[in-house]
This record gives sequence, structure tokens and C-alpha cells, in this order.
Amino acid sequence: MRLKSYFPILDWGRRYNRQTLTSDLIASVIVTIMLIPQSLAYALLAGLPPEVGLYASVLPLVAYAIFGTSSALAVGPVAVVSLMTATAVGRVAAEGSVDYASAAIVLALLSGVMLTIMGLFRLGFVANFLSHPVISGFITASGLIIATSQVGGLLGIKTEGHALPELLVSIYENVGNINFHTVAVGAVALALLLWIRLDLKNWLTRFGLSKGVATIIVRAGPVFVVLLTMAWSAGMGLASRGVSLVGDVPQGLPMLSLPSVSLDLVQQLALPALIISIVGFVESISVAQTLAAKRRERFTPNQELIGLGASNIAAAIGGGYPVTGGFARSVVNFDAGAATPAAGAFTAIGIAGATLLLTPFLAILPKATLAATIVLAVLTLVDFSILRRAWSYSKADFTAVAITMLGTLLLGVETGIALGVGTSILIFLYRSSKPHAAIVGQVPGTEHYRNVKRHKVETVPGMLSIRIDESLYFANARYLEDLVLEQVAANRGISDVVLMCSAVNAIDMSALESLEVIEHRLKEAGVRLHLSEVKGPVMDRLAHTHFLKNLSGGVHLSQHQATTSVLASRATNTTQTAA
Amino acid sequence: MRLKSYFPILDWGRRYNRQTLTSDLIASVIVTIMLIPQSLAYALLAGLPPEVGLYASVLPLVAYAIFGTSSALAVGPVAVVSLMTATAVGRVAAEGSVDYASAAIVLALLSGVMLTIMGLFRLGFVANFLSHPVISGFITASGLIIATSQVGGLLGIKTEGHALPELLVSIYENVGNINFHTVAVGAVALALLLWIRLDLKNWLTRFGLSKGVATIIVRAGPVFVVLLTMAWSAGMGLASRGVSLVGDVPQGLPMLSLPSVSLDLVQQLALPALIISIVGFVESISVAQTLAAKRRERFTPNQELIGLGASNIAAAIGGGYPVTGGFARSVVNFDAGAATPAAGAFTAIGIAGATLLLTPFLAILPKATLAATIVLAVLTLVDFSILRRAWSYSKADFTAVAITMLGTLLLGVETGIALGVGTSILIFLYRSSKPHAAIVGQVPGTEHYRNVKRHKVETVPGMLSIRIDESLYFANARYLEDLVLEQVAANRGISDVVLMCSAVNAIDMSALESLEVIEHRLKEAGVRLHLSEVKGPVMDRLAHTHFLKNLSGGVHLSQHQATTSVLASRATNTTQTAA
Repeated sequence: MRLKSYFPILDWGRRYNRQTLTSDLIASVIVTIMLIPQSLAYALLAGLPPEVGLYASVLPLVAYAIFGTSSALAVGPVAVVSLMTATAVGRVAAEGSVDYASAAIVLALLSGVMLTIMGLFRLGFVANFLSHPVISGFITASGLIIATSQVGGLLGIKTEGHALPELLVSIYENVGNINFHTVAVGAVALALLLWIRLDLKNWLTRFGLSKGVATIIVRAGPVFVVLLTMAWSAGMGLASRGVSLVGDVPQGLPMLSLPSVSLDLVQQLALPALIISIVGFVESISVAQTLAAKRRERFTPNQELIGLGASNIAAAIGGGYPVTGGFARSVVNFDAGAATPAAGAFTAIGIAGATLLLTPFLAILPKATLAATIVLAVLTLVDFSILRRAWSYSKADFTAVAITMLGTLLLGVETGIALGVGTSILIFLYRSSKPHAAIVGQVPGTEHYRNVKRHKVETVPGMLSIRIDESLYFANARYLEDLVLEQVAANRGISDVVLMCSAVNAIDMSALESLEVIEHRLKEAGVRLHLSEVKGPVMDRLAHTHFLKNLSGGVHLSQHQATTSVLASRATNTTQTAA
Repeated sequence: MRLKSYFPILDWGRRYNRQTLTSDLIASVIVTIMLIPQSLAYALLAGLPPEVGLYASVLPLVAYAIFGTSSALAVGPVAVVSLMTATAVGRVAAEGSVDYASAAIVLALLSGVMLTIMGLFRLGFVANFLSHPVISGFITASGLIIATSQVGGLLGIKTEGHALPELLVSIYENVGNINFHTVAVGAVALALLLWIRLDLKNWLTRFGLSKGVATIIVRAGPVFVVLLTMAWSAGMGLASRGVSLVGDVPQGLPMLSLPSVSLDLVQQLALPALIISIVGFVESISVAQTLAAKRRERFTPNQELIGLGASNIAAAIGGGYPVTGGFARSVVNFDAGAATPAAGAFTAIGIAGATLLLTPFLAILPKATLAATIVLAVLTLVDFSILRRAWSYSKADFTAVAITMLGTLLLGVETGIALGVGTSILIFLYRSSKPHAAIVGQVPGTEHYRNVKRHKVETVPGMLSIRIDESLYFANARYLEDLVLEQVAANRGISDVVLMCSAVNAIDMSALESLEVIEHRLKEAGVRLHLSEVKGPVMDRLAHTHFLKNLSGGVHLSQHQATTSVLASRATNTTQTAA
């Protein structure tokens, strides 16, 4: 059982049959065709030679097939992680150098080891600290940066930088060197790709093709564009007209090897590797989870970490760079009917074959074609509506999104995501340090108590019931003191204060000390302090404290019982006084 | 009004009369006598010439009298801040150099500016993030480090370092150079100071002195020890016997001047200045607040920040180093009857007079006397009981204390406090990311609903009521999804799920998306989702969302109404089916 949970292949492998094989084979062919131009393009985006993208699409897919749990997730180079790789590796080595490529491999290795460790220690929850709005803002900003970074490729000029300001300055400075042959190739490629995506399917079905065949042709579309521009490049001799081509690419697959890792490099790449790991994981599980839900499959995030970790270690061994589960290709894989992770392994075989056969021809491919592929792929990532939605729902969420976006655009991906996570945590802490509190009264005819300002409720004279809407902990302990003591000072003639603890999920030591101070001051003023609706776990903790032993009032199961008890004790007092 | 809140002196100054003047004068004499040896000693602890301690006890007190709000707080050099100064300044300049002294001045200036800005922008709440247990652990560890750092002074050997391991190694390495004359002076000073503190008062009252006079003599005690060891030093020619003396001290007060500030220095000292500011502020307000409460005075933390900020800026102008409100001396000031902040100003005049008159005589004072003063002062800071108390109340608080203590002892004050704050925030975040949740049922005979596992309650078949004990936000949004969907999967035959939101104080956008997912999945499974006891502020936010518009069940004011409504709708359905 244990073994099966770490090697899901042992589970689905036993149920493998002819039907699942057929489904997986068909899906793998479609994904292979889609993945070839994307792999080449994303490697360029990462600042690496294009063939590295192919290498990163072979072994990682096999590793994922063994360790991964999602039947549809397609692992490989993706846009955002490629940009993050370029940012991280660009800091330690010059683009194009041998050090650059090996640093990318070390980055994949580090990321793989980190993901695996997180999976083994069940630390998947850290991904929860990337809130949905922060991720959306980050992905949108990354998409914009990536699109901008490809403008150079489309215009035939060199640009530099991994954040918007540098890129724009760099484009502006080089705008005089535009190569119009490159612009022509880029424009045609862009237009064709756009047309393929938006219109080709309708067009083909109108010509009588079945929907299935039309879909396959559309998905193979980018490959046709690659072939077309290669023919253009060869036919018109674009190389001699100043158009950047992919150039000579080593034939065959790289030797399997582990990179030589220096401690210095590890130190420099550790933090980026961690950020890439978490961002990649989040991107991957959100796709995998959506697809798993559609098929009502089980999905285990911690095993998924191990699957992605193994994929990245495999990427390092196979001479690639960091990979993760891609959104678009996973959906294609799913739609094409991939039934098990084996579909990924078959795709790997397809890419390996392509790498062996196609690399000699890639030399004449204009880089502008790849730039066009990237631009079209990332435009689907850009979604500014998150700003509007966040604004209308909550200014706090909007602030987090806006800071993430601006931070990413202006300061780069790592700073951007760190600012986003930091902002959302700070907002949460700030809010819980100044909690909402309400004076409550009884909703007539019920035993329910609500805010006197929002509901028509009845209160008992001389009894002040305060509901504090937050766990009591160090950040709001002092606030609690001020709040209660001010309320008591403002309401003369109070004999009983009830703290209604229905929303208090924990009381830490600082808050306990504040409660002791409150109890002490109230006692001096002749006011009794009660608690009501204290939850089980909180009560367990308070049970043996001095505070509870010396509490002047009582602890009541419900707010209603608190009221009843206060009224009863007054009646007794009155009777005693009368007697 | 506005002006008065920024210059509290305008308020109490108008009510100043002969009686308050007398009280303030008496208090100031006692505090002056107490402050002289302490100021000299703490300056040495900070690695500065002893006279700097006197300088730091003049202008800052005047500034606090103008801007401060507490009538009893006595500002000046204190032990923990002196240690933090030594740590911070020791990193940028060599002890004893001119740069060292001017870096200490810059540190005071930075800290003053930061405190003032925090006060103007009402950022006093940041101090709340230092939890009580973390502060206790930090103060105890600092006390231990300070006491250890004085062992060298008591033995007549040189020691180095601002954390325990370095100090111990340094003592061990130099133990062969012990100067026995120094040991004798140190031992006598320690013994006398201890006797003065513990026994002298009883002894004097037994000899017939009044309690008041006895108290004053006890407080002047350390000055007698200083005078005694000075006489010993002069009489026995200790200088020629290898005993470290204070040595020549510049006579008079320093010129008022602002330090020349280099950007480089500011960058290096900014973070330590911030930490010193917050620690100093926390130390200061906890004393001031306790004393204000005793006299039932108003106390405004944000104005207090301005008061302390002004004091530190004044310290920089007057050639001092960072200051804050000290615990022991404030209590003495309070007990001696200080009625207004003017008492501080009079103390400043006293210290200025002493500086002018006494400095020529200080040359022969053995440093061991000052070391003994410090050791005795800081031993009151050390309190290991916090470890036991935290352990018995909550392992989370214990972890925060233990990490703070170990971090401070082993890695130094700045790392220690940063680790403490970081740990307590992480614990809070972790806990809220995996909230407690309970399935609830009705307490018989009431409209109150509690955990089925802890109370004898009644539940309705086919209706699942889950109370989630935490605000719903990004860190627990996914957890919420898993929780609800697992519960529904585990309980077949459920037709209605009620999320009881009495403990939900906020729902952020990530959590809203999770609620939408839950609603969607439940709808697919034919289960209705209800909410109950949603609080006002949360409801305001949800009001216009898609989620609420499409909610399959209802939103009920109380859990009891939710139950009633579900039962009623079933009755209707049954009737309809029957009809």
C-alpha cells in the first residue's frame, strides 16, 4: 500500500489494457505535435539553446509517468517558469555561455530536490500561502513581460532584461536596427498562428471535415507555420539578409549525466529554485485538480510534489531545465483522451524521436517564428479582469494583486511574487491585529445574540456583552485590553461584562495576560467578567490557568445562558438585600 | 487641541504649581543619584567612553519632558539597548575609535527619526507583533549575555563578542591573565551592592531611621560604592597594579552638534536602528502603561513614540547614544513621587551638574565597580520561569520563547529577536491555515449548537452542520474545500450542508473562490449548501457576489433557524410529493 502511494504507476499499471493504451497513444501524438514548437520557443525564452527545450520534454515526462498522480497533466517547459529561469540564471552567468546552460541544469536539480523533500515531508500546504489573486496578478504580469521580451525577436533586434522597464528601454534604444525581413516573417507567423487559433476550425468544418479531424489539424497548425517559415528561410536565403535563425543544433540526445554542483552556485540559486518550485507546483496543481475533478479522480497534492520533483531531477539528468505541468497542453492531453500518465511517456518517445530526426533541419528556422509562438501562447495568460474583480470584492485583495503585478512588471518575477505573498500575509496580520468587535443583544423571540448596531435586539441594563471577532493572540492582545476597558469606562453603571467567544478560535499566552489585566481592572471597578460560548479547544487550554480560577463571573455554555445566569444572580441579590 | 496632543507639556505645564514642583524636585534628586553610576556603566557596556552615558542622560530627558506623556517614565541609557548598540556599532567600527562613537550617535539619530515617524503615522501597533513571551525570552537572554560580558571587567581580562559562545571562548582564552586586585575590587563592589539591595534597608530601620530616609540611603548606595572604590584606587595606587580605571574623561559637556551622516553608514545601521527602536519602545511602554494604570492616567502609545523619538534625536545632538525608558529607574521615579515629566528635566540638570563637577575625579574609578553595577542591575532581568509558564500553557508559545532565547544567546540580539517574531508569526499563520472544525448539533432544550464530539447534542438526519473555527482566507481556502467535500463524501445520504460561520470573521477572495467550488460540487451531487450565523461585515462583502446569488440553500441568521428552515422545506417537499 505504502509503495503504491509513492509509485502510483504500480496502481494504474495493473489496470492497464488495450483500450487505455489506444487512448494514451492518440493523446500522445497530438501533444507531441503541439509540444515541439513550444519546447523550442520556451528554451529560447529561458535564454537557452532551443534543443534544451526538447531535452526537457523527454525524461521529465517519463519520471512523471512513474511518480505522478494526474492522468492528464502534461509536464514540460512552460512560459512562466522559463522566464523565472532566465531571471535566476541570468544573474549568475552570461547568456549563451556554457556556465549558463549548466546553471539552468543545477536550478532544475535544486528545484527537483526541494519539491521531492516538500512532498516527502508533506509540506504541500506552503503553496496555500500563494493566494489566488496573487497568482493571477503574477501570471498576468509575467505574461506581459514575456510578450514584451519577444518583441525583439519579432523585430530582429537584441533586447535585454527580465522586467518591463529594462525591456522597454532596450527596445527603444535598438529600434533603429529593425530588420524588415525578420518583421515580415514574424508578422506572417503571428497572423497565421492567430488565424489558426481563431478561425481555422470553423473554416475546416465548413469544408466538410469532421470536428475531430479539424481539431487535430488546428493543434498541428503551429508545426505547419514552422515548416512554412523554414521553407521561406531556405528559399529566400534569409540568413544572408540578417534574419536570426536557430542555427546549428547538436544532433541526437545528450548523454545522461548529473551536473557538477558548486556550493557557491547552490547558494546563489537556492532561493530562486525555491520560488520556481512553489510557483511551478501551484501552476501544476491548479490544472491537475481541475482536470481530476472533471473525471472525479482522486488527487494527492503531496504525491504530486514528488512527481514534479522527480520530473525536475530527470530534467537535470537529461540536460534540460526546470519544468512543470503546463496549462494549455494538459487541457489538450485531457481533451485528446489521455487515460493514464503513460500518455506522457509516449509523448516523451515522440519528442525523443523528433529530436533525433528533426534537429538537422532546425538550423534554418527563423527565431521570429518561435517568438510569434511564444507571444500567442502567453497572451492567454494575461487577464486584467482580476484587478476589477478584486477591487469590487475587497480592497485588501486588490492591494495584494496590484502590488504583485506592479512588483513583477517593474522589479522582476522573484521580487514581484515575494512582494505579493508578503503583502497578503501583512494584510491578514494587520486585519487580525485590529479585529472587529460588536456589542450584542438578544434577537427577540430567539436565543440568538447579534450586533446591536445591525439588528433589532434587546439588551439587559447594566450588562455589557462584547463579541470579539478574532482569535486572541499577541498582535491584538493590547487592542483587546483597550477595547474592553474603554467600553466599560464609556458605559457607567455596568455590573457585568460578558466576552462572547464564539469567534475566538485560540487564546495565546499574550492574550491570556491581557485577559488577566482586564479581569484585574474590572474587579477593581466592581465589575464581574464572564465568558460565553468558549470553544472546546480554547477551554481545554484555559482550564488550568489562574485566570479561570480567579474569574469573578462565570463561563457560560451559550450567550443566552450567560444572560439568564446574570439575571438570576441579580434576582438573588435583590432578594437577599430585601431580606 | 491638536498642538496639545503633540506637546503634552502645554497641557500639564498649565496645571504646574508649587506642590508638583516640590514632588518633582525630590524625585529628581533621587533619580539623579541613581542614574550617575548606571549611566557610566551602561556606556561602557555599549563599548563607549563612560562620559557618553552621562551625555545621554541630559538632553534626552529634557526632550522627553516636552514630548512625552508619562509622568513617571525615566528616560536614559538602559542595559538591553546598550548591548544592542554595542552589537550594531561593533559591526561597522572598531571599539574605542572615533568612528565607533560617531556611529553610536548616528544610530541614536536614526532610531529617533524612525520612532518619530512611527508616532506621526500612528504605527505604534507594530510593537504588538512582539509577543509577551518573545519579549520575556529576549530580555532574559540579553540579561545573561550582559552579565557574562561583565565577567571580563570583574576579572580584569579583556573579552570580546556580543553573544554567549564568543564571550565564553574569550573568557576561557584569557583566564590566565586574571588580575587579582581587580578581582578584589569587583568582589567587594558586588558584595556591597548586593548587601545594599537586600539588607541595608532593614538594617537602617532597625537602627531607628525612618523608612523614607532608609529608602533614600539605599538608592544612593551605589554612589557610596563608587566613592569607596575610588578611594581604594587612589589609596592603594591600583593603577600601577594593573587594575583598569576609567581614566581621563573630557571635562564639561560636549558641543551640541548633529553628526555627519554617510549614506553607507545609514544603510548599515538602518535595520539595527529599527530593531532597537521597537525593542526600546516596547520596553518603555510596558513600564509607562503599568505606572499610568496605577495612577489612572491616560496614556497614548503613539505620542509616546514621538516622545522617545525626540529623546533619541536629542541624544544624537548631545553626543550620546540610543536611549529609552528604563524599568528600574522609572519605578524609583514613580515611588519618589514624580508628578510630571518635569521631574525628568530636573534630573537632566542634576546630571549636567554632575558631569561638570565630577568628571575630573572619575579617572581613578576602577572599571570593575561599573561592571559590578551592571551585573547586579541585569540579574533582575533574568527570569527563566517564562519557559515553564509557556510550556504549561501552550507548546506554541514555548517554541517561540525557546527559539528567541536560544537565538539571542547563540546568535546575538538582532537575530534572536527577529527569529522570535518570525517564529510567532509563522506559528500563527500555520495554525490558521489548518483550522479547527467541528460538526455541530443542537444542545437539547436550547437553541445552542455545539461540537458533536464534546457535547451531548441532537442532529438532524441528512443534514450536516460544520462549524469552521477560523476566518476563511487564502492559507486555508484549499483546506476548506477538502474538508467539506471529504465530509460530504464520508456521509452518504446528505441532502443539506450548513456552514456555521459564527467564527468566520472574514472571507477573502481566495476563500470565496473555494466556496464557489464547494457550492458547484455539492450542486452536482444534489446537495444544498446553506450558511448560518454569517456576521455583518462578512455578509456586507458577500452581498453582491455570484456565490450568494447562486447559493442553492439559504443564508440563515442563526444555526437554529437553519435547522428549522431545512426541516420545514423537507416537510413542504414531502407534502408536495404526496400531493
